[in-house]
Amino acid sequence: MWTRKHLLGLEALSREEIVAVLDRASTFKKDGRLTGETLDTLAGKTVLLLFFEPSTRTSMSFEIAAKNLAANVLRFTSVNSSTAKGETLVDTVRNIAAMGPIDVAVVRHDTPGAPQRVARSLDASVINAGDGAHEHPTQGLLDILTIRETKGAFDGLNVAIVGDIAHSRVARSNLFGLTTLGAKVTVCGPATLVPDDVTQLAVEVAYDFDEIIPKMDVIMMLRIQHERMSEPLLPSNREYAKLFGLNRERENRMKDDAIVMHPGPINRGVELDADVADGERSVILQQVTNGVAVRMALLAMVLGK
Amino acid sequence: MWTRKHLLGLEALSREEIVAVLDRASTFKKDGRLTGETLDTLAGKTVLLLFFEPSTRTSMSFEIAAKNLAANVLRFTSVNSSTAKGETLVDTVRNIAAMGPIDVAVVRHDTPGAPQRVARSLDASVINAGDGAHEHPTQGLLDILTIRETKGAFDGLNVAIVGDIAHSRVARSNLFGLTTLGAKVTVCGPATLVPDDVTQLAVEVAYDFDEIIPKMDVIMMLRIQHERMSEPLLPSNREYAKLFGLNRERENRMKDDAIVMHPGPINRGVELDADVADGERSVILQQVTNGVAVRMALLAMVLGK
Amino acid sequence: MWTRKHLLGLEALSREEIVAVLDRASTFKKDGRLTGETLDTLAGKTVLLLFFEPSTRTSMSFEIAAKNLAANVLRFTSVNSSTAKGETLVDTVRNIAAMGPIDVAVVRHDTPGAPQRVARSLDASVINAGDGAHEHPTQGLLDILTIRETKGAFDGLNVAIVGDIAHSRVARSNLFGLTTLGAKVTVCGPATLVPDDVTQLAVEVAYDFDEIIPKMDVIMMLRIQHERMSEPLLPSNREYAKLFGLNRERENRMKDDAIVMHPGPINRGVELDADVADGERSVILQQVTNGVAVRMALLAMVLGK
Repeated sequence: MWTRKHLLGLEALSREEIVAVLDRASTFKKDGRLTGETLDTLAGKTVLLLFFEPSTRTSMSFEIAAKNLAANVLRFTSVNSSTAKGETLVDTVRNIAAMGPIDVAVVRHDTPGAPQRVARSLDASVINAGDGAHEHPTQGLLDILTIRETKGAFDGLNVAIVGDIAHSRVARSNLFGLTTLGAKVTVCGPATLVPDDVTQLAVEVAYDFDEIIPKMDVIMMLRIQHERMSEPLLPSNREYAKLFGLNRERENRMKDDAIVMHPGPINRGVELDADVADGERSVILQQVTNGVAVRMALLAMVLGK
Repeated sequence: MWTRKHLLGLEALSREEIVAVLDRASTFKKDGRLTGETLDTLAGKTVLLLFFEPSTRTSMSFEIAAKNLAANVLRFTSVNSSTAKGETLVDTVRNIAAMGPIDVAVVRHDTPGAPQRVARSLDASVINAGDGAHEHPTQGLLDILTIRETKGAFDGLNVAIVGDIAHSRVARSNLFGLTTLGAKVTVCGPATLVPDDVTQLAVEVAYDFDEIIPKMDVIMMLRIQHERMSEPLLPSNREYAKLFGLNRERENRMKDDAIVMHPGPINRGVELDADVADGERSVILQQVTNGVAVRMALLAMVLGK
Repeated sequence: MWTRKHLLGLEALSREEIVAVLDRASTFKKDGRLTGETLDTLAGKTVLLLFFEPSTRTSMSFEIAAKNLAANVLRFTSVNSSTAKGETLVDTVRNIAAMGPIDVAVVRHDTPGAPQRVARSLDASVINAGDGAHEHPTQGLLDILTIRETKGAFDGLNVAIVGDIAHSRVARSNLFGLTTLGAKVTVCGPATLVPDDVTQLAVEVAYDFDEIIPKMDVIMMLRIQHERMSEPLLPSNREYAKLFGLNRERENRMKDDAIVMHPGPINRGVELDADVADGERSVILQQVTNGVAVRMALLAMVLGK
């Protein structure tokens, strides 16, 4: 089912390929938890974590996933943007590869397409761990696994993605994956943060959060990231929370079995209130657990294991 | 003797509990050195180093201690104070725990009580590696082990702690531990740096260093940390050294077998002169060695090993 | 042949000692690549990476080399210059050594002579990984190995080192090593960047790059490092490239079998044009590979293995 050497995005993946990842990831879990067992699937293999943006959670999740499969982990971190641009990225990658065999390179970079450029310069599998506002496919897959675990099937499922759609690689990867699986996705946010071309992705657009809440099976809140906006596109956190924050009152109008998701880290009191984040509908920590499972699956699968 | 799941401070520890740690730590030493042997006491266990303040020595000491016991070490470092505040700390901890089982979390944080908050949100043992100006219990225990190794017993032993008592978690942990063991502790420093309530801890207070020197069996010099003071409480390094610095002349007036301690890193020429730091009375490197031994003991004991 | 406990520089090394390192390094390669095999040569040994200057490539190369030999790796990084100065360096080193046995310390520091100071305070082997503008002996050795692999012999070989000779520890280590081996070295650069005393090292000096190009067997371009110059000694990158940059036009006037070297990272378009860096004469990635091989050899040899 899975024959790809790289995972650069969810846009290109078929339903069968996505399901293959979910199925493999599920084998690493038991009773809702990771088994915690160390497998020797990747013994003798080297996984390079190549992070050009600050990251603690995602890089830690990949590190744990790689170690759970007994891989060696090498870490290259640079937040110096001069290192991160253009040909220099390729130089960096070729240099590291000259130091010894790399089997998988996990790449995070603020430039869309950077992982693809690494894939062309390196004789290793590449997994995109987030490239600018383009894609964050392992986040998309962990979200999708979480939805499958709680809701069972995707056909006709109503999923809302709420917040800064325009700057969110998390939103894009979820959009690609969820529509491929047959879910009905609605994006919702301030007009300034919803790109015009999003309707081409066969999704609904809503500007009034309150209106769509009662119909949704899944509400995925995005993190407000002021640092990603070059000009102020939002009035204030308080104003944003009033219009698009998921608080207890809004949660009360959700379907009985609807769930709340968030990619973390949460701005509590802005896009998500603390009681909702910690409430019964929240599957946020399940998402984190599934992140390790999905990354274990992908590290193994891109190496044909 | 030891039944605690956490080590949050020395204030709560009984004489028997402290002695149990010292005895266990001593088993890892031979002829004054660490045996250097790798034991499999914590094989398969995961120790998380959760450092929200810059630290190299303490975190390296814990890392070496954990690896000496064959534990897996995960490191989470953040000096971003926004991550470090309030509920976000709990979010961070819960997230990491969702990625896989954590057996011990070692926590350093600039907020007093942070390790306790972690202990409440996590199903793991927690060791406080320094929380604001509250406690630094492993430092206290390594100091106490060093005193026991050199002086034998604590009853009636005269110990001076000299310097910035008000801002020092090292001083507090030592005060709790040493008085529990029966030592007679005198704190000494400029009036601005000795808190009023310290006398409630059954210790003597002195403002004239020269006066107390001849009576002391142990003189523990604290590091002057300008960065911890929000307003200037000291005239100048030179003035401080003149009144409270331990120089060769003052050392000459110490008891014959009295020892000099310092938690490091030393401001040479300020609180401690170079020849005293490197002199025969100095047990400073012995303290560092004992740091690893004490941390090995605690990592094992909080897990019931 | 090799009896040294430390490698502090190439100035003191004999021809036989250099050749011994090259020969040992070659055993770790096959068909131009590192074998990638993990040897147990240093099992149970601890290598401390003590980096007081930012470094990713060199420290990663040493880390990979140490792990290829099954050593334990400890990392101490500080870019805080206060930690890095004078006696405090010795304090830091003694402290780390008090935490457990260190077998080899790899030291990078911005002060010339710092590795020697560490060697005097520590009962471990020391390898200099770059000390100020003094020496960078492992870089010199990897360059020399690369020249031997491509050109065979050193006697009478014409080698040009081009750029900022005055501030370059890479240039100095190469000068010492190459002249010891019998190569004829010419240094070339702007008059402000060639020190007066360089002629004492029995090398030619040239200020006109174009004139020497046709005679050279090896052209080693140095990185322009504005950050190392306390006053502006260069007019501009553009002016520098015009006079001393190796571009396609200049490359065309090189000897048929002459090679191009660079210690990395490259300022593409300044000292070296992209097509030359990626062209057929370039042995730059071979240098990187040889860096790991040379460091493996040295880690083993300073421990008498």
